[in-house]
Amino acid sequence: MPRRAVIGVMGAGESASATDLTLAERLGELIAREGWVLLTGGRDAGVMAAASRGAKRVPGSLTVGILSTEAGGVSDGVDVAVFTGMGNARNAINVLSSQVVIACGAGGPGTASEIALALKSGKPVVLVSPTPFAESFFRTLGGRIFVVGCAEEAIALIKAQALMRP
Amino acid sequence: MPRRAVIGVMGAGESASATDLTLAERLGELIAREGWVLLTGGRDAGVMAAASRGAKRVPGSLTVGILSTEAGGVSDGVDVAVFTGMGNARNAINVLSSQVVIACGAGGPGTASEIALALKSGKPVVLVSPTPFAESFFRTLGGRIFVVGCAEEAIALIKAQALMRP
Amino acid sequence: MPRRAVIGVMGAGESASATDLTLAERLGELIAREGWVLLTGGRDAGVMAAASRGAKRVPGSLTVGILSTEAGGVSDGVDVAVFTGMGNARNAINVLSSQVVIACGAGGPGTASEIALALKSGKPVVLVSPTPFAESFFRTLGGRIFVVGCAEEAIALIKAQALMRP
Amino acid sequence: MPRRAVIGVMGAGESASATDLTLAERLGELIAREGWVLLTGGRDAGVMAAASRGAKRVPGSLTVGILSTEAGGVSDGVDVAVFTGMGNARNAINVLSSQVVIACGAGGPGTASEIALALKSGKPVVLVSPTPFAESFFRTLGGRIFVVGCAEEAIALIKAQALMRP
Repeated sequence: MPRRAVIGVMGAGESASATDLTLAERLGELIAREGWVLLTGGRDAGVMAAASRGAKRVPGSLTVGILSTEAGGVSDGVDVAVFTGMGNARNAINVLSSQVVIACGAGGPGTASEIALALKSGKPVVLVSPTPFAESFFRTLGGRIFVVGCAEEAIALIKAQALMRP
Repeated sequence: MPRRAVIGVMGAGESASATDLTLAERLGELIAREGWVLLTGGRDAGVMAAASRGAKRVPGSLTVGILSTEAGGVSDGVDVAVFTGMGNARNAINVLSSQVVIACGAGGPGTASEIALALKSGKPVVLVSPTPFAESFFRTLGGRIFVVGCAEEAIALIKAQALMRP
Repeated sequence: MPRRAVIGVMGAGESASATDLTLAERLGELIAREGWVLLTGGRDAGVMAAASRGAKRVPGSLTVGILSTEAGGVSDGVDVAVFTGMGNARNAINVLSSQVVIACGAGGPGTASEIALALKSGKPVVLVSPTPFAESFFRTLGGRIFVVGCAEEAIALIKAQALMRP
Repeated sequence: MPRRAVIGVMGAGESASATDLTLAERLGELIAREGWVLLTGGRDAGVMAAASRGAKRVPGSLTVGILSTEAGGVSDGVDVAVFTGMGNARNAINVLSSQVVIACGAGGPGTASEIALALKSGKPVVLVSPTPFAESFFRTLGGRIFVVGCAEEAIALIKAQALMRP
C-alpha cells in the first residue's frame, strides 16, 4: 500500500481572520476526506488549529504538526507532533514534507517564506484567495503556482492535476 | 482524546547486525501493540526499516520517519515521512519528538549522537543490550538512562515508569 | 571592543543579472569600508560571490558565508565558511545572524524566503531596486522595510537609521 | 590566498572544571597563533568562553561562535556570532564547519553529541585528556580519533598529521 499523500496547509497564526479560519477548517476537512494526511505548523492558533480541527471531524483522518518549538503548545487536532526546536527554519521542513503546499488566506511573513521555499524546492503551491499583490509577486518567482477561490476548488485542482503524486 | 505517545527507536542503518534487526522488529511490534506511535530515522535500512516493518504488522499502528534527506528513499513501513533535508541535524528532531528514545543494539556514531542529544534534552533513554563501554560512558553523562536486555523488558520498563507520559 | 556589525546581502545565484552583480560588488565593498562584516550564502555564484569579492578589495575586510551544503563550493571571497548541511533551512540562519538584511536586485524564491524570514524575525530589510510587485507585496507583510535605489543609498540609510545596532 | 583552517573546540559550558577552562584557554591561544580560525558554540560560558578569550590574546586572531539561540548571550571573545536559533541541532553545524574537532575535557552530553556527529561526518576528532570510558567508547564507533594529554600536543598532532587541511 503506498504512503498517503501529505498536503500542507499554511497560513496565519494569531492574526488569522475569520474568513481564513473558515477556509482552513474546510480545507482540513476536504483533505482528510480524500484520505490525504494534513500537515500544518502544529500550533494551537489560527489556520494551523482550524485546519487540523476540520480534518479531525473525518473518521480515519491523520494530521501532522511540525512545530518550531522544542515542546508544548500543540493544537488538539494534531495526531503526530514533530518538535524541531528550530524556529522558523522548520518552515523548510513543512515544505519538503508536503506534496502540495496550500496557502490559506493572506498569511504573514511566515506563510510568505513557506510559499517561497516551496517554489524554491519545486513544490506545487496553491494560493487560495490571495491578495492581488501576493499573486503578482509570487508569479514573478517562477515555479508551479495555482490560484483558486475556495477550498473545494483547491481540492479539485489538486486531483485534476494529480499534484498529490510525489 | 490525548495524543498517542511517540517512542523513538534508534540504531544502525546498513551496518546493523542480524541481532539488531530481530530486536528492532520486535520493538516496533510491541510499541505498536501499546498503541504508541513509532518514530525512526525513516530510511529503508537497518534498525529503522526493521522497527517500522514490525510495527506495521499490528493493525492500527502508526509509524513516522524523520528523514535526513530532502526526498526519496523511505522504508515501506513508514506511514508518515517527514523530510528535513538537514542531514544529521535531524537527529535533534528525532529526540525532541519522542517521549522515550530506545537505542537498539550497538549502533554507530549516529545513534551515539542521538543518545547524547536525548540526555541533553532531558529525555529518558533505554539502552537495549548496549556494549559495556557504551553503558559505562553514557552513565557518566548524567540524565535518565535505563538498561534492559530485550524488547519485552524495554516496553515493561517504559510502562512501569510511565516514561511515555510527556 | 564591541563585535563588528554583520550585514547580510541576499540575492540571486546563477540567475543574477549583470546589474545585480555590479550592485552586489559595490555593496560588498561599501559594507567592508564601514568595518562591518559581510554575510552571504557563501556559494561561488551570483550575488554571493560578487558581494564577497567586492568586500575583499578592502583591507581588513571580513566576509562570512553560510552554506546550505555540507562541504565544498565556496566563493574565493569568503573568509569564514559555515557549512550547515541544511539546505534552504539555512536561510533562517542568514537572517538571524545579520543585523540588517539587504536584498540585492530582483532575486528569486530563495531571496524572497530570506526577506520574509527577516521580517518575521523583526530584522530591518533594505530592498535595493526591487520590482514594483516585490515592494508592494513585502510592504503588506508589515515589519521594517526600506527601499533604496543604489548601494550608496543603502549604506547611508543603514547609518542614518543606525540599523546596524543589534 | 586559501581560506584559514577552522578548528572547533567543544566542551562543557557552566559545568566546566577549572582544569577544562585552563586547557580551553591554552587551546584557543595556540590555535590563534597558528593563524587558524577558532570555532566554538559561542556562549559566554565554560570552554567556549575560555577558548575564545585565549584566542583573542593573539593579534590577528579570528573567532567564530555558532550559537544555538536566536539572539543575545555571546562571549566577548567571539568576533563573528552566527545565530542559528536551532537548539542542539546546531551541533551538526559546528562539526561540519570545522576541519578538526577538539574535545576539551570530559564535557557533557552536548560535547558527546558533537564528537559522535564529527565521527559520523568523517571529521578527525582530538580528545584531550578524555575519561577512560569516553576514549574506549568513542573508539568503538570507528573514524579518526586521536588522544592527547595537553593543548601543545593537540596542536603538534594536528600539524604533524596535516588534519587542518580540508
